[in-house]
Amino acid sequence: MPKSPWSVPVTEALHASGVRVADLDTNATPGFRGDKKAGELLLEERRAVLSGLQEKLYANGRSGDPRNILLVLQGMDTAGKGGIVRHVIGSVDPQGVDHAAFGVPSAQERRHHYLWRIRRQLPRGGQIGVFDRSHYEDVLVVRVHDLVPPDVWGKRYDEINRFERTAANAGTTIIKVAMFVSLDEQRKRLTQRLDRPDKYWKFDPADIDERAYWPAYQEAYQAVLDRTCTEYAPWYVIPSDRKWYSRLAVTELLIDALGKLDLDWPPARFDIAEQRRRLADL
Amino acid sequence: MPKSPWSVPVTEALHASGVRVADLDTNATPGFRGDKKAGELLLEERRAVLSGLQEKLYANGRSGDPRNILLVLQGMDTAGKGGIVRHVIGSVDPQGVDHAAFGVPSAQERRHHYLWRIRRQLPRGGQIGVFDRSHYEDVLVVRVHDLVPPDVWGKRYDEINRFERTAANAGTTIIKVAMFVSLDEQRKRLTQRLDRPDKYWKFDPADIDERAYWPAYQEAYQAVLDRTCTEYAPWYVIPSDRKWYSRLAVTELLIDALGKLDLDWPPARFDIAEQRRRLADL
Repeated sequence: MPKSPWSVPVTEALHASGVRVADLDTNATPGFRGDKKAGELLLEERRAVLSGLQEKLYANGRSGDPRNILLVLQGMDTAGKGGIVRHVIGSVDPQGVDHAAFGVPSAQERRHHYLWRIRRQLPRGGQIGVFDRSHYEDVLVVRVHDLVPPDVWGKRYDEINRFERTAANAGTTIIKVAMFVSLDEQRKRLTQRLDRPDKYWKFDPADIDERAYWPAYQEAYQAVLDRTCTEYAPWYVIPSDRKWYSRLAVTELLIDALGKLDLDWPPARFDIAEQRRRLADL
Repeated sequence: MPKSPWSVPVTEALHASGVRVADLDTNATPGFRGDKKAGELLLEERRAVLSGLQEKLYANGRSGDPRNILLVLQGMDTAGKGGIVRHVIGSVDPQGVDHAAFGVPSAQERRHHYLWRIRRQLPRGGQIGVFDRSHYEDVLVVRVHDLVPPDVWGKRYDEINRFERTAANAGTTIIKVAMFVSLDEQRKRLTQRLDRPDKYWKFDPADIDERAYWPAYQEAYQAVLDRTCTEYAPWYVIPSDRKWYSRLAVTELLIDALGKLDLDWPPARFDIAEQRRRLADL
């Protein structure tokens, strides 16, 4: 049997339990034995595996199975959330993807509870839902910038846990991914956006302002990991200085989650011989 | 200069004007000089071109440009609408895709005007919207099966034209694609769904019932093409017995539409030198 490219299953290597955000090596490639080239080659293979499993999930959803996957992506600007959508989610059939990006809440959204807009975007049966940012912004940017008083955001961790438990009980496999780059790597990536006219549109001067709050964000992320990493909705911490690694890691997390659903093709809900006869006649 | 693989631009070769649905050769490959192998090779190249253009559209949308693309897919069962989504739309970044499938209207949808659910799914600026079936079902299945009286569906053609003109004026480039397979080809594809356990889920006995209405559907499609093929929302008729051809053709239609938007990367809306200095300091 050929040696696995992983020394430790990715769900163990990246599990948030015990992680100290401030001490994280964002350049590491936990659990993976290979280098960039090996990682990129493997990603190509695993994208195909993911696509095959996704089709089964979709088929079951179409046949009434309520189960679905929700991938929650969190991370500072430039951490690579968009790249995950493009290169990982982009490998599966768009029909089976419910993608939602949560930016600054609109006026309408602000009139509702912060989970209102989230709940509306929960994936349907058979779908892979992707949240590019999420309800966690309500305990991250909101906490860092004092957008609501501490006793308001302070209650949200438990509320989020209850919300996620309800979704999990209804058939959603929740995979939460926190992507971390170093301050230096972020500077490199932001600089690239200033150097290349095809990247200007990705640059927002406010992203630089946020760099001053880095320690506060680390603290807020630490609280998120400490208080909302649950059995039914675990956090995985992805060192993301190396894009090839973060994409491979999230691909493996999705493959693992789909594998655990133990999906088969839905059985025929009609008499095959009868339908063959009808078809021959018509 | 190398010879183009197309003898006629695809927008001309496939334009619905003058098409007689009942006489259509669904096995043809209008305008394309090559065979299946050449078509499949070309598709790979053109998928990358489409993806590049789509990124520019998305970038402009993020920068406030309201323009977007709407691809409307219509066709009898097995015509290959799903394959277009998977293999054509699947080549672009999922962040830039608004996909909507319109099945039998729900109870809630039925309480509204038939365009209500359609309007809600119109693509946002920068997005490629994909309608898998659409408001045209309201003059196709509805007409064929007398779901509403003729004087009701009869008014819808003009109403749809007005609706589409409004959307076009607001910045939506509308591309409507009618995919046609022959009755024989449909039988082959339905048979395959009965032969392969990984395809059972795609089979619906009702699809066979619909075969008895083939001439009525052809007539209803003819009326759609005759009455709703407009300058601002043209129909293209895709012979779809050959999947490689239909996928290539729709890819070219999208590339053509994106090309006509004459997109450039959005300019920097900040002082680049100033942002470089700020970034060096922080």
